[in-house]
Amino acid sequence: MTDRQFSATAANSGNSADGFRVQLGGNKPLRLDSEAELGPFAMAYQTYGTLNQDKSNAILVCHALTGDQFILGPHPVSGRSGWWEHMVGPGKTLDTARYYVICANVLGGCMGTVGPQDINPQTGASYGLDFPVITIKDMVEAQAMLLDYLEIDQLFSVIGGSMGGMQVLQWAVSYPERCFTAVPIAAAARHSAQNIAFHEVGRQAIMADPEWSEGGYLVGDTFPVRGLAVARMAGHITYLSEAALHRKFGRELQDRAEVSYGFDADFQVESYLRHQGISFVERFDANSYLYITRAMDYFDLAAEHGGVLANAFQDVETRFCIISITSDWLYPTSESREVVRALNAVAANVSFVEIVSDKGHDAFLLDEPTMFDTLGGFLNGAAKLRGLDLT
Amino acid sequence: MTDRQFSATAANSGNSADGFRVQLGGNKPLRLDSEAELGPFAMAYQTYGTLNQDKSNAILVCHALTGDQFILGPHPVSGRSGWWEHMVGPGKTLDTARYYVICANVLGGCMGTVGPQDINPQTGASYGLDFPVITIKDMVEAQAMLLDYLEIDQLFSVIGGSMGGMQVLQWAVSYPERCFTAVPIAAAARHSAQNIAFHEVGRQAIMADPEWSEGGYLVGDTFPVRGLAVARMAGHITYLSEAALHRKFGRELQDRAEVSYGFDADFQVESYLRHQGISFVERFDANSYLYITRAMDYFDLAAEHGGVLANAFQDVETRFCIISITSDWLYPTSESREVVRALNAVAANVSFVEIVSDKGHDAFLLDEPTMFDTLGGFLNGAAKLRGLDLT
Repeated sequence: MTDRQFSATAANSGNSADGFRVQLGGNKPLRLDSEAELGPFAMAYQTYGTLNQDKSNAILVCHALTGDQFILGPHPVSGRSGWWEHMVGPGKTLDTARYYVICANVLGGCMGTVGPQDINPQTGASYGLDFPVITIKDMVEAQAMLLDYLEIDQLFSVIGGSMGGMQVLQWAVSYPERCFTAVPIAAAARHSAQNIAFHEVGRQAIMADPEWSEGGYLVGDTFPVRGLAVARMAGHITYLSEAALHRKFGRELQDRAEVSYGFDADFQVESYLRHQGISFVERFDANSYLYITRAMDYFDLAAEHGGVLANAFQDVETRFCIISITSDWLYPTSESREVVRALNAVAANVSFVEIVSDKGHDAFLLDEPTMFDTLGGFLNGAAKLRGLDLT
Repeated sequence: MTDRQFSATAANSGNSADGFRVQLGGNKPLRLDSEAELGPFAMAYQTYGTLNQDKSNAILVCHALTGDQFILGPHPVSGRSGWWEHMVGPGKTLDTARYYVICANVLGGCMGTVGPQDINPQTGASYGLDFPVITIKDMVEAQAMLLDYLEIDQLFSVIGGSMGGMQVLQWAVSYPERCFTAVPIAAAARHSAQNIAFHEVGRQAIMADPEWSEGGYLVGDTFPVRGLAVARMAGHITYLSEAALHRKFGRELQDRAEVSYGFDADFQVESYLRHQGISFVERFDANSYLYITRAMDYFDLAAEHGGVLANAFQDVETRFCIISITSDWLYPTSESREVVRALNAVAANVSFVEIVSDKGHDAFLLDEPTMFDTLGGFLNGAAKLRGLDLT
């Protein structure tokens, strides 16, 4: 296996990021939950900071549904800031002067890791819907293969919000010995009926677009622009709170003093949503959206343990810091409490903090000082315990 | 103007319903908020019960976005029950042995009242997007013309839920002297940013469907089936609470023991939503959906009164019974409280009851005994005051 520089743009951004793309599973393919096998497959990742000598300062950051490995910007496609610049960087909570931060594009993604847009070696054409359906556990297995490749036995921490938090929980269940600490933020141990419902709307919007061509749009050189934009719009509403939408937009009109009595984007909130839809299409693959939402829907950590979540965490020694957000209605605090209760039931080491914010689910991406203080304090304590201050 | 029997099916259902379609605005067209003029135009309505001699027992029921005049079934298109059979009928809260219940299809609708699917007399073809954009106030003006035609000066009550509740509030503001009582249920005095956002997703889903043909699908004999179905799916989620979806479906699978690792409707909630989308398309017009959602978005009762809602209700003598539902996140109780506060500020006669139900917005359509008791008690008191028991 050989590394190759994946993104010169990111590497030269001044953020000291290194971008790589590796081939994994060449000797032994990854056996997926669906029983399909994948390998060799490409995995793209970025690293920030420096791995210390005994490889004890590595933090794996897991990204959310529409995120990617570019925690810090500029993003190679959009040119915009990275998605977690508030959290990660020199002197930040995930201090890259201290920690070695790794973030890999998830399995099924569209930023360098193998996904439905890639070439199916068996056909020589883009996978499309021939790509195997993947799960959160499969994503974690692929990340574990990456850690093996990097020869990192144990992560100081595995951290992520939303779908990233699901991966964190799966990590602590699949590889407790490899996670010194685990920080799931704004997440849940299973996807709720309402969450599945919203995802299904997004998938149906994509599949309703004739340009989707039963998933084969790349062969025909088309793209379900409108369907994917509608999916993004529906999803985006769920990431914000009603209060945040009201404060940001209320009923303010867009570039006009009066309503138009028509179907233009009269209201700022309409204009904003349309923009969200259009700009998303430029950086995301429609089939990846199908596959990744499906992986989230399938996530149910208790299911493999007789329906009892606590059983998933038996004998776990990982230290948990669980964070929820008051106004998050997609992954409400009650879902985090379920995880806390399960961890308490097996006498695990767990801190739980609910961050007061009216910004909704997406608050985990924003400048939330209480979240940074909470997580910073937790990591400092754990770093002492791990002897990280001495290295 | 002549009445003609509009729906023999409904009239012969045994529910003692009478269905009519009248031409209104023949002498003087309806001037819309947009300043367009409409007339003569068709208005379809149903009546249930008998109008008393002094015409003091009439209740106007205003229907919601996807409702129509068929309060009691069987519905002439779907063959299913009427949408408010729990509430209306002999011995029910809106007792048709006692009251004369009228329900008219709203302006812009697709069940007999003029809407975008009708023939534009100026072109001889279906209106499509040439139909003028309408408002909640326009809907009420058209209903007032219907009451003039029926020679009913004052309604004993005007009652409705959701968009029906918006019409109720508009009635009390536009024609306070014609409303002895007014009962807005699960409604608001304005459409919130989040509500506009969800509607915009629905509209974009319809408009993204190539079969929509810029609104001209009836000319080409096509129909945006998939777009309208997606719009309905997105809307439908907002009508239910997370708790209701969880109780009804949870993560239960549909007709299978294991997930399929594919994009079929593995989960019951997916199957349910798909069914909601498909069956809606059979009975609703896509352009009507655009026009009626737009009317709701534009609704802001305070806006015409200097932004002060209380000013809209100055000197109102109508007696109000305002009902909200605890788990309604589309029109939360806080929105109803705003109306109550405004009415209190002008010393209006107002009762307010929040119904405890975890069924979400749609609870107003369901069998909710507390709602029936509350409304029944309110109407009984008002009937005595109106001398209705003596007639």
